[in-house]
Amino acid sequence: MKKKFAIILAGCGVYDGAEIHEATLTMLAISRQGAEYQCFAPDVDQTHVVNHLTGKEMNERRNVLVESARIARGNILSLSDFHASEYDAIVFPGGFGVAKNLCTFAFDGVECSVNEEVRVAVNETYKAGKPIGALCISPVLIAKILGGVEVTIGMDPKTASAVKSMGGQHVNTTHGEVVVDKRNKIVTTPCYMLDANISQIADGADHVIRTILGMV
Amino acid sequence: MKKKFAIILAGCGVYDGAEIHEATLTMLAISRQGAEYQCFAPDVDQTHVVNHLTGKEMNERRNVLVESARIARGNILSLSDFHASEYDAIVFPGGFGVAKNLCTFAFDGVECSVNEEVRVAVNETYKAGKPIGALCISPVLIAKILGGVEVTIGMDPKTASAVKSMGGQHVNTTHGEVVVDKRNKIVTTPCYMLDANISQIADGADHVIRTILGMV
Repeated sequence: MKKKFAIILAGCGVYDGAEIHEATLTMLAISRQGAEYQCFAPDVDQTHVVNHLTGKEMNERRNVLVESARIARGNILSLSDFHASEYDAIVFPGGFGVAKNLCTFAFDGVECSVNEEVRVAVNETYKAGKPIGALCISPVLIAKILGGVEVTIGMDPKTASAVKSMGGQHVNTTHGEVVVDKRNKIVTTPCYMLDANISQIADGADHVIRTILGMV
Repeated sequence: MKKKFAIILAGCGVYDGAEIHEATLTMLAISRQGAEYQCFAPDVDQTHVVNHLTGKEMNERRNVLVESARIARGNILSLSDFHASEYDAIVFPGGFGVAKNLCTFAFDGVECSVNEEVRVAVNETYKAGKPIGALCISPVLIAKILGGVEVTIGMDPKTASAVKSMGGQHVNTTHGEVVVDKRNKIVTTPCYMLDANISQIADGADHVIRTILGMV
Protein backbone atom coordinates (compact mmCIF):
# COMPACT_ATOMS: atom_id res chain seq x y z
CA MET A 1 0.00 0.00 0.00
CA LYS A 2 1.28 3.43 -0.95
CA LYS A 3 1.50 5.98 1.84
CA LYS A 4 -1.06 8.74 1.40
CA PHE A 5 -0.64 12.44 2.14
CA ALA A 6 -3.33 15.08 2.50
CA ILE A 7 -2.13 18.39 1.03
CA ILE A 8 -3.99 21.44 2.35
CA LEU A 9 -4.14 24.36 -0.08
CA ALA A 10 -5.03 27.98 0.64
CA GLY A 11 -5.89 29.33 -2.82
CA CYS A 12 -3.70 29.76 -5.90
CA GLY A 13 -0.91 32.33 -5.88
CA VAL A 14 1.72 33.50 -3.41
CA TYR A 15 0.14 36.84 -2.41
CA ASP A 16 -3.42 35.71 -1.63
CA GLY A 17 -3.35 31.91 -1.78
CA ALA A 18 -1.12 28.85 -1.77
CA GLU A 19 2.38 29.41 -3.14
CA ILE A 20 2.20 27.58 -6.48
CA HIS A 21 5.79 26.29 -6.63
CA GLU A 22 5.68 25.00 -3.05
CA ALA A 23 2.36 23.26 -3.66
CA THR A 24 3.42 21.73 -7.00
CA LEU A 25 6.83 20.64 -5.71
CA THR A 26 5.24 19.06 -2.63
CA MET A 27 3.10 16.98 -5.01
CA LEU A 28 6.17 16.13 -7.07
CA ALA A 29 8.16 15.10 -3.98
CA ILE A 30 5.34 12.81 -2.85
CA SER A 31 5.01 11.24 -6.30
CA ARG A 32 8.77 10.86 -6.79
CA GLN A 33 9.05 9.06 -3.45
CA GLY A 34 6.35 6.52 -4.32
CA ALA A 35 3.53 7.90 -2.22
CA GLU A 36 0.14 9.42 -3.12
CA TYR A 37 -1.68 12.63 -2.30
CA GLN A 38 -5.15 14.09 -2.09
CA CYS A 39 -5.61 17.87 -2.09
CA PHE A 40 -8.03 19.68 0.21
CA ALA A 41 -8.99 23.31 0.80
CA PRO A 42 -11.61 25.08 2.91
CA ASP A 43 -14.73 26.12 0.99
CA VAL A 44 -14.61 29.79 2.06
CA ASP A 45 -14.07 33.14 0.35
CA GLN A 46 -10.50 34.40 0.13
CA THR A 47 -9.83 37.31 2.48
CA HIS A 48 -9.02 39.34 -0.60
CA VAL A 49 -7.69 39.05 -4.16
CA VAL A 50 -4.26 40.45 -5.05
CA ASN A 51 -3.14 41.38 -8.57
CA HIS A 52 0.15 39.45 -8.75
CA LEU A 53 1.55 41.81 -11.40
CA THR A 54 1.12 45.02 -9.37
CA GLY A 55 0.77 43.68 -5.82
CA LYS A 56 -2.41 45.73 -5.40
CA GLU A 57 -5.73 44.49 -4.07
CA MET A 58 -8.42 43.84 -6.71
CA ASN A 59 -12.13 44.46 -6.32
CA GLU A 60 -13.04 40.78 -6.75
CA ARG A 61 -14.23 37.84 -4.72
CA ARG A 62 -12.73 34.38 -5.13
CA ASN A 63 -13.27 31.12 -3.26
CA VAL A 64 -10.33 29.29 -1.67
CA LEU A 65 -11.50 25.81 -2.72
CA VAL A 66 -12.32 26.88 -6.29
CA GLU A 67 -8.97 28.63 -6.80
CA SER A 68 -7.01 25.83 -5.10
CA ALA A 69 -8.61 23.48 -7.65
CA ARG A 70 -6.42 25.17 -10.28
CA ILE A 71 -3.27 23.76 -8.68
CA ALA A 72 -4.97 20.38 -8.12
CA ARG A 73 -6.29 20.16 -11.70
CA GLY A 74 -9.80 19.80 -10.29
CA ASN A 75 -8.91 16.81 -8.10
CA ILE A 76 -9.59 18.40 -4.72
CA LEU A 77 -12.00 17.95 -1.82
CA SER A 78 -13.51 20.37 0.65
CA LEU A 79 -11.56 20.35 3.91
CA SER A 80 -14.83 19.43 5.65
CA ASP A 81 -14.38 15.97 4.05
CA PHE A 82 -10.94 15.41 5.57
CA HIS A 83 -10.61 12.55 8.07
CA ALA A 84 -7.21 12.00 9.66
CA SER A 85 -7.88 8.25 9.78
CA GLU A 86 -7.71 8.06 5.95
CA TYR A 87 -4.23 9.60 5.56
CA ASP A 88 -0.73 8.83 6.80
CA ALA A 89 0.29 12.47 7.08
CA ILE A 90 -0.83 16.01 6.32
CA VAL A 91 1.22 18.75 4.63
CA PHE A 92 0.73 22.51 4.35
CA PRO A 93 2.57 24.30 1.52
CA GLY A 94 3.07 28.03 2.16
CA GLY A 95 1.99 31.29 0.56
CA PHE A 96 0.26 34.31 2.08
CA GLY A 97 -3.05 32.43 1.76
CA VAL A 98 -2.01 30.37 4.78
CA ALA A 99 -1.73 33.57 6.82
CA LYS A 100 -4.80 35.19 5.24
CA ASN A 101 -7.29 32.41 4.46
CA LEU A 102 -6.38 29.51 6.80
CA CYS A 103 -5.69 31.87 9.69
CA THR A 104 -5.45 35.64 10.08
CA PHE A 105 -1.77 35.87 11.03
CA ALA A 106 -1.00 38.34 8.20
CA PHE A 107 -3.41 40.83 9.77
CA ASP A 108 -3.59 39.95 13.48
CA GLY A 109 -0.16 38.44 14.26
CA VAL A 110 0.02 36.25 17.35
CA GLU A 111 -3.60 37.08 18.22
CA CYS A 112 -4.81 35.58 14.93
CA SER A 113 -7.85 33.37 14.58
CA VAL A 114 -7.75 30.02 12.78
CA ASN A 115 -10.27 28.57 10.31
CA GLU A 116 -12.18 25.95 12.31
CA GLU A 117 -11.81 23.15 9.72
CA VAL A 118 -8.07 23.76 9.59
CA ARG A 119 -7.87 23.62 13.38
CA VAL A 120 -9.82 20.36 13.48
CA ALA A 121 -7.70 18.79 10.69
CA VAL A 122 -4.44 19.63 12.47
CA ASN A 123 -5.71 18.55 15.88
CA GLU A 124 -7.13 15.25 14.57
CA THR A 125 -3.88 14.45 12.76
CA TYR A 126 -1.85 15.32 15.84
CA LYS A 127 -4.04 13.24 18.17
CA ALA A 128 -3.79 10.29 15.77
CA GLY A 129 0.00 10.45 16.18
CA LYS A 130 0.51 11.18 12.49
CA PRO A 131 3.13 13.57 11.06
CA ILE A 132 2.40 17.14 10.04
CA GLY A 133 4.59 18.85 7.43
CA ALA A 134 4.63 22.63 7.00
CA LEU A 135 6.51 24.79 4.48
CA CYS A 136 7.32 28.50 4.42
CA ILE A 137 4.89 30.49 6.64
CA SER A 138 2.73 27.43 7.50
CA PRO A 139 4.73 26.50 10.63
CA VAL A 140 3.24 29.63 12.23
CA LEU A 141 -0.22 28.14 11.72
CA ILE A 142 0.87 24.86 13.31
CA ALA A 143 2.41 26.69 16.28
CA LYS A 144 -0.78 28.73 16.72
CA ILE A 145 -2.92 25.58 16.81
CA LEU A 146 -0.65 23.22 18.79
CA GLY A 147 1.39 25.65 20.92
CA GLY A 148 4.54 23.99 22.23
CA VAL A 149 6.12 22.67 19.04
CA GLU A 150 9.58 23.17 17.56
CA VAL A 151 9.56 24.61 14.05
CA THR A 152 11.44 26.75 11.55
CA ILE A 153 10.32 29.60 9.34
CA GLY A 154 13.88 30.27 8.19
CA MET A 155 15.59 33.18 9.91
CA ASP A 156 13.19 36.13 9.97
CA PRO A 157 13.43 37.48 13.56
CA LYS A 158 9.90 38.95 13.69
CA THR A 159 8.17 35.75 12.55
CA ALA A 160 10.44 33.62 14.76
CA SER A 161 9.50 35.84 17.69
CA ALA A 162 5.80 35.34 16.89
CA VAL A 163 6.31 31.56 16.99
CA LYS A 164 7.80 31.92 20.46
CA SER A 165 4.95 34.15 21.63
CA MET A 166 2.56 31.37 20.60
CA GLY A 167 4.42 28.94 22.88
CA GLY A 168 6.58 27.36 20.17
CA GLN A 169 10.32 27.02 19.82
CA HIS A 170 12.08 28.35 16.73
CA VAL A 171 15.25 27.07 15.08
CA ASN A 172 16.95 29.14 12.36
CA THR A 173 17.55 27.29 9.08
CA THR A 174 18.69 27.97 5.55
CA HIS A 175 17.72 26.58 2.11
CA GLY A 176 16.48 22.99 2.03
CA GLU A 177 17.01 22.33 5.73
CA VAL A 178 14.25 20.88 7.90
CA VAL A 179 13.51 21.05 11.58
CA VAL A 180 12.09 17.83 13.00
CA ASP A 181 10.11 17.93 16.24
CA LYS A 182 10.28 14.17 16.82
CA ARG A 183 8.03 14.08 19.86
CA ASN A 184 5.21 15.92 18.11
CA LYS A 185 6.02 14.65 14.60
CA ILE A 186 6.20 18.14 13.08
CA VAL A 187 8.51 18.63 10.06
CA THR A 188 9.12 22.18 8.79
CA THR A 189 11.28 23.94 6.17
CA PRO A 190 11.58 27.64 5.18
CA CYS A 191 11.18 27.61 1.36
CA TYR A 192 10.22 31.11 0.13
CA MET A 193 10.47 32.58 3.65
CA LEU A 194 14.07 32.86 2.45
CA ASP A 195 15.14 34.56 -0.79
CA ALA A 196 15.14 31.23 -2.62
CA ASN A 197 15.19 29.90 -6.15
CA ILE A 198 12.87 27.17 -7.37
CA SER A 199 15.50 24.40 -7.05
CA GLN A 200 15.84 25.25 -3.36
CA ILE A 201 12.05 24.96 -2.97
CA ALA A 202 12.19 21.50 -4.55
CA ASP A 203 14.99 20.55 -2.14
CA GLY A 204 12.97 21.71 0.88
CA ALA A 205 9.80 19.92 -0.20
CA ASP A 206 11.77 16.76 -0.97
CA HIS A 207 13.43 16.84 2.44
CA VAL A 208 10.12 17.32 4.29
CA ILE A 209 8.45 14.43 2.46
CA ARG A 210 11.45 12.11 2.89
CA THR A 211 11.57 12.88 6.61
CA ILE A 212 7.85 12.22 7.02
CA LEU A 213 8.05 8.95 5.07
CA GLY A 214 10.71 7.86 7.55
CA MET A 215 8.15 8.30 10.35
CA VAL A 216 5.11 6.51 8.92
CA MET B 1 27.12 33.11 -18.83
CA LYS B 2 24.03 31.13 -17.95
CA LYS B 3 21.77 30.21 -20.85
CA LYS B 4 18.48 32.09 -20.67
CA PHE B 5 15.01 30.81 -21.56
CA ALA B 6 11.87 32.80 -22.19
CA ILE B 7 8.82 30.94 -20.82
CA ILE B 8 5.51 31.99 -22.37
CA LEU B 9 2.50 31.57 -20.07
CA ALA B 10 -1.19 31.58 -21.01
CA GLY B 11 -2.88 32.26 -17.67
CA CYS B 12 -2.98 30.18 -14.49
CA GLY B 13 -4.85 26.87 -14.47
CA VAL B 14 -5.25 23.93 -16.83
CA TYR B 15 -8.80 24.66 -18.05
CA ASP B 16 -8.47 28.35 -18.99
CA GLY B 17 -4.76 29.15 -18.65
CA ALA B 18 -1.29 27.68 -18.42
CA GLU B 19 -1.10 24.21 -16.89
CA ILE B 20 0.44 24.95 -13.50
CA HIS B 21 2.51 21.77 -13.08
CA GLU B 22 3.93 22.01 -16.59
CA ALA B 23 4.84 25.67 -16.10
CA THR B 24 6.37 25.13 -12.64
CA LEU B 25 8.29 22.02 -13.69
CA THR B 26 9.65 23.79 -16.77
CA MET B 27 11.02 26.45 -14.42
CA LEU B 28 12.45 23.74 -12.15
CA ALA B 29 14.08 21.91 -15.08
CA ILE B 30 15.73 25.14 -16.26
CA SER B 31 16.97 25.96 -12.76
CA ARG B 32 18.19 22.40 -12.05
CA GLN B 33 20.18 22.41 -15.28
CA GLY B 34 21.99 25.63 -14.46
CA ALA B 35 20.13 27.98 -16.78
CA GLU B 36 17.83 30.96 -16.12
CA TYR B 37 14.35 31.97 -17.20
CA GLN B 38 12.15 35.00 -17.68
CA CYS B 39 8.37 34.57 -17.87
CA PHE B 40 6.18 36.42 -20.39
CA ALA B 41 2.47 36.49 -21.19
CA PRO B 42 0.27 38.54 -23.51
CA ASP B 43 -1.56 41.42 -21.82
CA VAL B 44 -5.03 40.42 -23.04
CA ASP B 45 -8.25 39.22 -21.45
CA GLN B 46 -8.70 35.46 -21.09
CA THR B 47 -11.25 34.05 -23.54
CA HIS B 48 -13.22 32.91 -20.50
CA VAL B 49 -12.83 31.86 -16.87
CA VAL B 50 -13.46 28.23 -15.84
CA ASN B 51 -14.31 27.09 -12.32
CA HIS B 52 -11.70 24.34 -11.87
CA LEU B 53 -13.81 22.56 -9.25
CA THR B 54 -16.91 22.14 -11.43
CA GLY B 55 -15.51 22.64 -14.94
CA LYS B 56 -18.18 25.25 -15.63
CA GLU B 57 -17.66 28.71 -17.08
CA MET B 58 -17.79 31.58 -14.57
CA ASN B 59 -19.20 35.03 -15.21
CA GLU B 60 -15.87 36.77 -14.66
CA ARG B 61 -13.14 38.52 -16.62
CA ARG B 62 -9.48 37.87 -15.97
CA ASN B 63 -6.32 39.05 -17.73
CA VAL B 64 -3.78 36.53 -19.07
CA LEU B 65 -0.73 38.52 -17.93
CA VAL B 66 -2.16 39.24 -14.47
CA GLU B 67 -3.13 35.60 -13.85
CA SER B 68 0.14 34.25 -15.30
CA ALA B 69 1.91 36.46 -12.74
CA ARG B 70 0.62 34.05 -10.07
CA ILE B 71 2.80 31.25 -11.43
CA ALA B 72 5.73 33.65 -11.94
CA ARG B 73 5.45 35.14 -8.41
CA GLY B 74 5.08 38.58 -10.00
CA ASN B 75 8.31 38.29 -12.01
CA ILE B 76 6.81 38.44 -15.48
CA LEU B 77 6.85 40.76 -18.49
CA SER B 78 4.31 41.56 -21.16
CA LEU B 79 4.96 39.53 -24.29
CA SER B 80 5.22 42.84 -26.17
CA ASP B 81 8.58 43.27 -24.39
CA PHE B 82 10.00 39.97 -25.69
CA HIS B 83 13.00 40.21 -28.03
CA ALA B 84 14.40 36.95 -29.39
CA SER B 85 17.90 38.45 -29.39
CA GLU B 86 17.88 38.51 -25.56
CA TYR B 87 17.15 34.78 -25.05
CA ASP B 88 18.77 31.51 -26.05
CA ALA B 89 15.47 29.66 -26.43
CA ILE B 90 11.73 29.99 -25.89
CA VAL B 91 9.43 27.44 -24.21
CA PHE B 92 5.64 27.07 -24.13
CA PRO B 93 4.15 24.99 -21.29
CA GLY B 94 0.68 23.61 -22.06
CA GLY B 95 -2.81 24.00 -20.65
CA PHE B 96 -6.04 24.91 -22.43
CA GLY B 97 -4.99 28.57 -22.20
CA VAL B 98 -2.58 27.90 -25.07
CA ALA B 99 -5.53 26.81 -27.23
CA LYS B 100 -7.89 29.51 -25.91
CA ASN B 101 -5.79 32.60 -25.16
CA LEU B 102 -2.63 32.27 -27.28
CA CYS B 103 -4.60 30.94 -30.23
CA THR B 104 -8.20 29.81 -30.78
CA PHE B 105 -7.53 26.13 -31.56
CA ALA B 106 -9.92 24.95 -28.79
CA PHE B 107 -12.80 26.65 -30.61
CA ASP B 108 -11.78 26.87 -34.27
CA GLY B 109 -9.49 23.85 -34.78
CA VAL B 110 -7.14 24.03 -37.76
CA GLU B 111 -8.72 27.33 -38.86
CA CYS B 112 -7.72 28.99 -35.58
CA SER B 113 -6.28 32.48 -35.32
CA VAL B 114 -3.09 33.22 -33.36
CA ASN B 115 -2.39 36.10 -30.99
CA GLU B 116 -0.16 38.48 -32.96
CA GLU B 117 2.49 38.88 -30.24
CA VAL B 118 2.73 35.11 -29.93
CA ARG B 119 3.14 34.77 -33.69
CA VAL B 120 5.89 37.41 -33.74
CA ALA B 121 7.71 35.83 -30.77
CA VAL B 122 7.74 32.38 -32.39
CA ASN B 123 8.71 33.72 -35.82
CA GLU B 124 11.52 35.92 -34.44
CA THR B 125 12.94 33.02 -32.43
CA TYR B 126 12.73 30.71 -35.43
CA LYS B 127 14.37 33.21 -37.77
CA ALA B 128 17.17 33.75 -35.24
CA GLY B 129 17.88 30.01 -35.42
CA LYS B 130 17.08 29.51 -31.75
CA PRO B 131 15.27 26.48 -30.29
CA ILE B 132 11.57 26.42 -29.47
CA GLY B 133 10.25 24.02 -26.81
CA ALA B 134 6.56 23.14 -26.55
CA LEU B 135 4.75 20.92 -24.04
CA CYS B 136 1.30 19.29 -24.08
CA ILE B 137 -1.03 21.09 -26.55
CA SER B 138 1.50 23.84 -27.39
CA PRO B 139 3.02 21.97 -30.35
CA VAL B 140 -0.26 22.64 -32.18
CA LEU B 141 0.37 26.38 -31.80
CA ILE B 142 3.90 26.00 -33.18
CA ALA B 143 2.64 23.93 -36.13
CA LYS B 144 -0.03 26.55 -36.83
CA ILE B 145 2.56 29.35 -36.91
CA LEU B 146 5.48 27.59 -38.64
CA GLY B 147 3.71 24.98 -40.76
CA GLY B 148 6.08 22.19 -41.80
CA VAL B 149 7.54 21.14 -38.48
CA GLU B 150 7.76 17.72 -36.83
CA VAL B 151 6.16 17.58 -33.39
CA THR B 152 4.36 15.37 -30.88
CA ILE B 153 1.21 15.91 -28.86
CA GLY B 154 1.30 12.33 -27.54
CA MET B 155 -1.05 9.94 -29.30
CA ASP B 156 -4.46 11.61 -29.63
CA PRO B 157 -5.51 10.90 -33.26
CA LYS B 158 -7.72 13.96 -33.65
CA THR B 159 -5.08 16.44 -32.48
CA ALA B 160 -2.37 14.61 -34.44
CA SER B 161 -4.57 14.89 -37.52
CA ALA B 162 -4.97 18.63 -36.92
CA VAL B 163 -1.18 19.00 -36.82
CA LYS B 164 -0.99 17.29 -40.21
CA SER B 165 -3.74 19.53 -41.62
CA MET B 166 -1.63 22.52 -40.62
CA GLY B 167 1.27 21.18 -42.66
CA GLY B 168 3.16 19.57 -39.79
CA GLN B 169 4.32 16.02 -39.22
CA HIS B 170 3.24 14.15 -36.09
CA VAL B 171 5.11 11.43 -34.20
CA ASN B 172 3.33 9.43 -31.48
CA THR B 173 5.07 9.42 -28.11
CA THR B 174 4.47 8.30 -24.54
CA HIS B 175 5.43 9.71 -21.12
CA GLY B 176 8.61 11.74 -20.94
CA GLU B 177 9.58 11.22 -24.57
CA VAL B 178 10.50 14.13 -26.82
CA VAL B 179 10.37 14.64 -30.55
CA VAL B 180 13.27 16.69 -31.91
CA ASP B 181 12.92 18.46 -35.23
CA LYS B 182 16.63 19.14 -35.64
CA ARG B 183 16.38 21.19 -38.79
CA ASN B 184 13.85 23.60 -37.29
CA LYS B 185 15.08 23.27 -33.68
CA ILE B 186 11.63 22.36 -32.33
CA VAL B 187 11.50 20.14 -29.22
CA THR B 188 8.11 18.80 -28.07
CA THR B 189 6.73 16.41 -25.41
CA PRO B 190 3.17 15.31 -24.58
CA CYS B 191 2.89 15.87 -20.78
CA TYR B 192 -0.81 16.05 -19.76
CA MET B 193 -1.96 15.33 -23.33
CA LEU B 194 -1.50 11.81 -21.93
CA ASP B 195 -3.10 10.54 -18.72
CA ALA B 196 0.04 11.37 -16.76
CA ASN B 197 1.14 11.78 -13.16
CA ILE B 198 3.20 14.72 -11.97
CA SER B 199 6.51 12.79 -12.03
CA GLN B 200 5.97 12.09 -15.73
CA ILE B 201 5.41 15.82 -16.31
CA ALA B 202 8.71 16.55 -14.56
CA ASP B 203 10.42 13.93 -16.77
CA GLY B 204 9.00 15.50 -19.94
CA ALA B 205 9.96 19.05 -18.96
CA ASP B 206 13.44 17.89 -17.95
CA HIS B 207 13.93 16.11 -21.26
CA VAL B 208 12.82 19.13 -23.31
CA ILE B 209 15.15 21.50 -21.45
CA ARG B 210 18.10 19.09 -21.60
CA THR B 211 17.59 18.64 -25.33
CA ILE B 212 17.42 22.38 -25.94
CA LEU B 213 20.53 23.01 -23.83
CA GLY B 214 22.33 20.56 -26.10
CA MET B 215 21.48 22.82 -29.05
CA VAL B 216 22.45 26.25 -27.72
